[in-house]
Amino acid sequence: MLPKSIMERDGELWYFVEEGDNASLNYRVRRILHEEQTPYQHLMVLDTYDFGPCLILDHILQTTSMDGFIYNEMIAHMPLALHPDPKDVLIIGGGDLGVANEVVKYDSVERVDMIEIDEAVVRAAQRFLPEVAGEGPLDPKIHVHYEDGVKYMANASRTYDVVIIDSSDPVGPAVELFSQPFYQNVHKRLNPDGIMSCQSLSPVFNMFYLQHIREVLDLFFPAVKTYHATIPTYNGGLYSFTIGMKKVPATLTGIKPHGENRYVTPEVLEASFVHPEYVRNDLKMRERT
Amino acid sequence: MLPKSIMERDGELWYFVEEGDNASLNYRVRRILHEEQTPYQHLMVLDTYDFGPCLILDHILQTTSMDGFIYNEMIAHMPLALHPDPKDVLIIGGGDLGVANEVVKYDSVERVDMIEIDEAVVRAAQRFLPEVAGEGPLDPKIHVHYEDGVKYMANASRTYDVVIIDSSDPVGPAVELFSQPFYQNVHKRLNPDGIMSCQSLSPVFNMFYLQHIREVLDLFFPAVKTYHATIPTYNGGLYSFTIGMKKVPATLTGIKPHGENRYVTPEVLEASFVHPEYVRNDLKMRERT
Repeated sequence: MLPKSIMERDGELWYFVEEGDNASLNYRVRRILHEEQTPYQHLMVLDTYDFGPCLILDHILQTTSMDGFIYNEMIAHMPLALHPDPKDVLIIGGGDLGVANEVVKYDSVERVDMIEIDEAVVRAAQRFLPEVAGEGPLDPKIHVHYEDGVKYMANASRTYDVVIIDSSDPVGPAVELFSQPFYQNVHKRLNPDGIMSCQSLSPVFNMFYLQHIREVLDLFFPAVKTYHATIPTYNGGLYSFTIGMKKVPATLTGIKPHGENRYVTPEVLEASFVHPEYVRNDLKMRERT
Repeated sequence: MLPKSIMERDGELWYFVEEGDNASLNYRVRRILHEEQTPYQHLMVLDTYDFGPCLILDHILQTTSMDGFIYNEMIAHMPLALHPDPKDVLIIGGGDLGVANEVVKYDSVERVDMIEIDEAVVRAAQRFLPEVAGEGPLDPKIHVHYEDGVKYMANASRTYDVVIIDSSDPVGPAVELFSQPFYQNVHKRLNPDGIMSCQSLSPVFNMFYLQHIREVLDLFFPAVKTYHATIPTYNGGLYSFTIGMKKVPATLTGIKPHGENRYVTPEVLEASFVHPEYVRNDLKMRERT
């Protein structure tokens, strides 16, 4: 039997991404490379014609070989390039390893702790999405722990310079990663000049969640900024990320990403804070920076 | 019989936008508001749940009530705000009237000639898409001519400060609007400090056409610049526009759009020239500004 998000049409397989009740994106699929029910979620890897192998959790598209770099670079480089000297970095989620691979582009980084609840995601990414997960062994600075990110944040004593919340959407195992107690713990685990980043969904289709995340971060951080990227495989293209900073930065210009990158440049990072007028109105920008 | 891009599924109508052979976008349709075969193309207006009434030509989505303003503001305000004193403006295409409505936000503008080949498009937009076409009578500065834009450019003697090529994609009646002789005539019809803008398709899915347009403009204009916007209802979201300027501008900063707008601001116009690194590499930016 085909997985519920796969349909056959004229002898071809198509992956249907439902986007609410009124829209769907369909991608023609060369082959179902992998399917399993993990203890936490349904996991698939589909080889699509346009975007190559794609990781799908609970039938929601997470990352693709073709454009996964956009999300991974944007969520990782902004906090790392804004921090004066990031040494200890924590990633919550991040099972496809793409974010961890961006983090170790910064020579100052000494240790990366990655807290992923589902080992099956890491295994699938390493086997089927080397463009995202990287080829060969992980950088020895990266320490992967198979634990619940929410419990880790509540119980751990280690502190960090940068915390990156690379969660899936607020359904299934990631729901608590959008809650106030969780962000309070993120704030506690950050050193005095610490910076956190998270994905904050689509400003077009999920403004409710974006607003919610900004309101929660506003409770704990003196500087909260939303920035955006265009990710072709996400519905509507426009996608947002939000950072919380323990110190109000003097400026958000001259941000210099490290390493060889395919999306970010100093100009792209700076321009990503500039929102279309309709988004700016919706955000009712109460930003204090 | 249903139009070929409409399918019924579980008693609901869905509009299928084919995006090449390997992807499609589907929108749930409340009602087919209008369908006709004009002398030039197949025309439909669909009332969709997510985007309201949408104009569809030859089964390709052109503009929606919800996000049509993004395209219209971006193609119109960039050349008008860059020009020191735009008085005479020409629009080639533009049948949904959205661009003409943006142009008359500039008080300096005295006359707008709009050359649309298909009267049925204007009629349908005025009847079904007032969010784009405007309510009530057209601004008296706007003169609509139902003619072939290619022939008009070859034969007209009037000259303009700004020319906006608001064409559909390079299939069907718009093919010649992407040709070298056409752009040579655009250059001829522009006054000495004239500026033209055109849509140049998706940098993700149609880089071939974007490169082609840039190469053709490079033959005639000393300054050619590509800028972008994120349009949720276009495949992949990322979309490009290109301007050709007869005079090399001293700067592309401090661009001030006129009127009440929903997408453009001075910051948005300036940031729209900043491309992701992968696009910049693909463009092999040979820009001379």
